[in-house]
Amino acid sequence: MPVITLTTDFGLSDPYVGIMKGVILGICPGARLVDLTHSIPPQELAPAVLTLRASIPFFPKGTIHLAVVDPGVGTSRRGIAAEFDGGILVGPDNGIIPAALGGKQITRAVSLEADACRLHPVSETFHGRDIFAPAAAHLARGAGLETLGPMVEDPVTIDIPQPLVVENEDSSIEVSGQILYADHFGNLITNIPRELIESADEKRAVRVTIGETTIAKISRTYSDGVTDQPVALFGSHGHLEIACNQGSAQEKLGAQKGDVVRVELTNREL
Amino acid sequence: MPVITLTTDFGLSDPYVGIMKGVILGICPGARLVDLTHSIPPQELAPAVLTLRASIPFFPKGTIHLAVVDPGVGTSRRGIAAEFDGGILVGPDNGIIPAALGGKQITRAVSLEADACRLHPVSETFHGRDIFAPAAAHLARGAGLETLGPMVEDPVTIDIPQPLVVENEDSSIEVSGQILYADHFGNLITNIPRELIESADEKRAVRVTIGETTIAKISRTYSDGVTDQPVALFGSHGHLEIACNQGSAQEKLGAQKGDVVRVELTNREL
Amino acid sequence: MPVITLTTDFGLSDPYVGIMKGVILGICPGARLVDLTHSIPPQELAPAVLTLRASIPFFPKGTIHLAVVDPGVGTSRRGIAAEFDGGILVGPDNGIIPAALGGKQITRAVSLEADACRLHPVSETFHGRDIFAPAAAHLARGAGLETLGPMVEDPVTIDIPQPLVVENEDSSIEVSGQILYADHFGNLITNIPRELIESADEKRAVRVTIGETTIAKISRTYSDGVTDQPVALFGSHGHLEIACNQGSAQEKLGAQKGDVVRVELTNREL
Repeated sequence: MPVITLTTDFGLSDPYVGIMKGVILGICPGARLVDLTHSIPPQELAPAVLTLRASIPFFPKGTIHLAVVDPGVGTSRRGIAAEFDGGILVGPDNGIIPAALGGKQITRAVSLEADACRLHPVSETFHGRDIFAPAAAHLARGAGLETLGPMVEDPVTIDIPQPLVVENEDSSIEVSGQILYADHFGNLITNIPRELIESADEKRAVRVTIGETTIAKISRTYSDGVTDQPVALFGSHGHLEIACNQGSAQEKLGAQKGDVVRVELTNREL
Repeated sequence: MPVITLTTDFGLSDPYVGIMKGVILGICPGARLVDLTHSIPPQELAPAVLTLRASIPFFPKGTIHLAVVDPGVGTSRRGIAAEFDGGILVGPDNGIIPAALGGKQITRAVSLEADACRLHPVSETFHGRDIFAPAAAHLARGAGLETLGPMVEDPVTIDIPQPLVVENEDSSIEVSGQILYADHFGNLITNIPRELIESADEKRAVRVTIGETTIAKISRTYSDGVTDQPVALFGSHGHLEIACNQGSAQEKLGAQKGDVVRVELTNREL
Repeated sequence: MPVITLTTDFGLSDPYVGIMKGVILGICPGARLVDLTHSIPPQELAPAVLTLRASIPFFPKGTIHLAVVDPGVGTSRRGIAAEFDGGILVGPDNGIIPAALGGKQITRAVSLEADACRLHPVSETFHGRDIFAPAAAHLARGAGLETLGPMVEDPVTIDIPQPLVVENEDSSIEVSGQILYADHFGNLITNIPRELIESADEKRAVRVTIGETTIAKISRTYSDGVTDQPVALFGSHGHLEIACNQGSAQEKLGAQKGDVVRVELTNREL
C-alpha cells in the first residue's frame, strides 16, 4: 500500500485536489493519499520546500511526494520525478524538489515525457491532473522510474538561503536570517528554524530585530501581541515568523522577501 | 475498493464531514473516500453542479459521488441515487444530480426510502449522516440500486444556463453568459468555462463587460488587479469570475445572480 | 482495517496533520484515517470535547480517536490512552478524554510512557507526532493497551457544564445554559445542544436572552440577521450559538466564557 503525499497551492474550495486523487485512484486503486497542505501561497516555492523538508523524514520509506506549485504551467518547463534514499518526489522542474531534500542526494531523476504515463490530451493549465498525478500513480503501482521518461542530470535548483549563526566570546549567539515570504495574512516567514533557537539555552534573553523594529521575546501564539503590534513566534512550518496580532506585519513593517531578521540570544540583560 | 467522493456545504470547522465518513466506514470498511470540496456556499446548488461536472470525468468507473447541499433538509423532498454510465450520484432530489451529469443520461434512479439503508432514527437536520452516507456506503459494498427504494422516473431538474457563442464574419467571437452565484468573497462566478475562451486564438484582444463595467484582459490571479478594481479571471471550478482585489465585486458592481457577462474576442483593436 | 480519527487545533495550512498521518502509516500501513476537524480554536478544550461527543457514536466499534489539543505540551502532563465500550481515545491527559465520553465509562487507561511506542527523540513541542500518533498507530495494528505504559486510575477531568431545564406549570420550558467559548469569528458557542430545543414543541414561541440582549427567534443561518445584529442559531457542533452577521458577537455583546444564556419556549405570546 504505497503512500502518496500531496502539496499544492490549490486551496480546498475547488475540486482540483480531489480531481488529482481521482486520477491517482483510477491508476493505482490501493494508493494511500495524505494531504500535507494545499494552502501554499500561490506560486511560492519556498513554503512548499519548507513543508516537504518538515514532512519527508516522518513518512515511510518509498513514499511518493507530489509537489505541485507551478508558476510555469503551460510553458516549456519540464516535469520530473526524482528518486532519493527514502522515496520519490514528483512535480514541476522548478527547483522545489532538490531544495526539499535539503542535504539528501537525488540518486536518479527523469523527465516526465512518456505518453503512457500522462492523461490525454494534456491541458495547458492543469499538469497536476494530466502529468504529475498520473506519474505518481504509475510509480505507486510499481512502474520503474525509467519508464516515465528520459534521465535528467540537471534538475533546476533554487537556493533557500540558510541563516548564519555566530557564537560570540561571551557565549551569546547571533542568528542572522531573512524573510522567505509573506503568507496571505501578511505574516513574515523567515528561514530561521525553531530548532536553531530552541537548541540554545532557553533561559537566555532573546531579542529579534527586523529593520528598525525590536521584539523582546518569542511568543507562543499570534494573540500574545498587543493588537497591531509585531510579535515573533514559531508558526507555520516551524520557522520563526514576524506577525501582527489582527493585522498584516508585511504592511505594518513595510517588509519584504529578503529583508534581514536577526535573533540575539544572550545571558546579558538586553 | 470502491471510491466515494464527498461534496458538501458543511465546511471543515465542524465534524459533520468526518461523521459521514464514520458512518460510511462502519457500513463499507473498504471504501476509499475523496473530498471534492466542502466549501460550497451554503445551500447554493450551482457551485455543487460545477464541482461535480469538473470532477466526475476523472474518477474511475463505478465511483459513487455523494453531493449533500440540501436547502430542503427536513421537508418532504426525496433523496435519490441515480446511476449513469460511469458511476452513481447520491443526494437530495433537488436538481443537482441531473445537472451534474451535463449531457450524460441517468440510466436508473431510486428514491432512498428503504429502512435497511438508513440510520435510525432519521433526524430532521442531518440527512447527510442518516440517509445519504448510508446509501452511498451500501452501494459501495455492492448493494443493488433497487434495494435502496422504489424507482424514480422524474428526478427534479434545474437549469444551469449555458453561455451563447456567436462567431462574427470578421471571425471575432462574442460569448454571452451570466452570473451563476457570488461566492463568500463576493466574487461573481459565471457560467463561462475556461475552455470556451481558451480554445479561441490566444492572441486575440479580450474585452469582458458586466453592466457598465469593462475589463480589458483576463488576469491570472486575484492580485493582478489594482486594489478594489474589478478583474476577470478563471478561478474556482474553471469558470470565468469577476472579482475585486481585496474587495467584494458583488458589492462594488451591485451585481447579482443572473446578470449578463459578455466576453468579446477579436483581432481588431478594442 | 482499523479507523483512526484526528481532532486537533493545528489548522490545515501547515503540514502538522499530514506529518502525524505519515507517522501512523509508517507503523500501521492499513489504518483508515478520518479528519474530524483541525479547526479547534487554539488550545480550547471544550470545542474538542463537543466535536468528539458528536462524532464518536457514528464511528465503528474499535475506532481510535486521536485528540491533540495540548496547551500543556512540553510540561510534565501525561499522555493517555483510554479504552471505552466502543473504542479508544488517545491524547494529552488534560480532561478532554473523559469529558468526550459524556456518560460512558473509561474501562482502562494507561499513561503513554513505553519507549517502544514513541518516536525518538521526543520533541518538546510536537507530542502529536512523537507520542500520540505512534500510540494510536500501535493500537491500530493490534498492540494491547497495557503495552503502551502503566495503568492510570485518575485521568484528569474537566467539567463541561450542563444546561438546566425547568418545565413550568403552564408547560413553558426554560433552558439555562452558558457560553463555553468564542470561536475565531467571535461567535459565542453555548452548552445548549440542538436536541434540547428541538425536542420541544416546534410551534412554541422562542426567546433567547444573553445579558441585556433578547433574540426573538432561532435562525437557520448567520446571514439571517440584520448586519451587525445578534442572531441565535444552531451552528458548529450542533450547539446553540449567538452570532453577529458580519461581525463579532463576542465584541458586540461584551460577552465571555461562562456568561449565562437563557432560552424560553412557551405557547404564550412573548
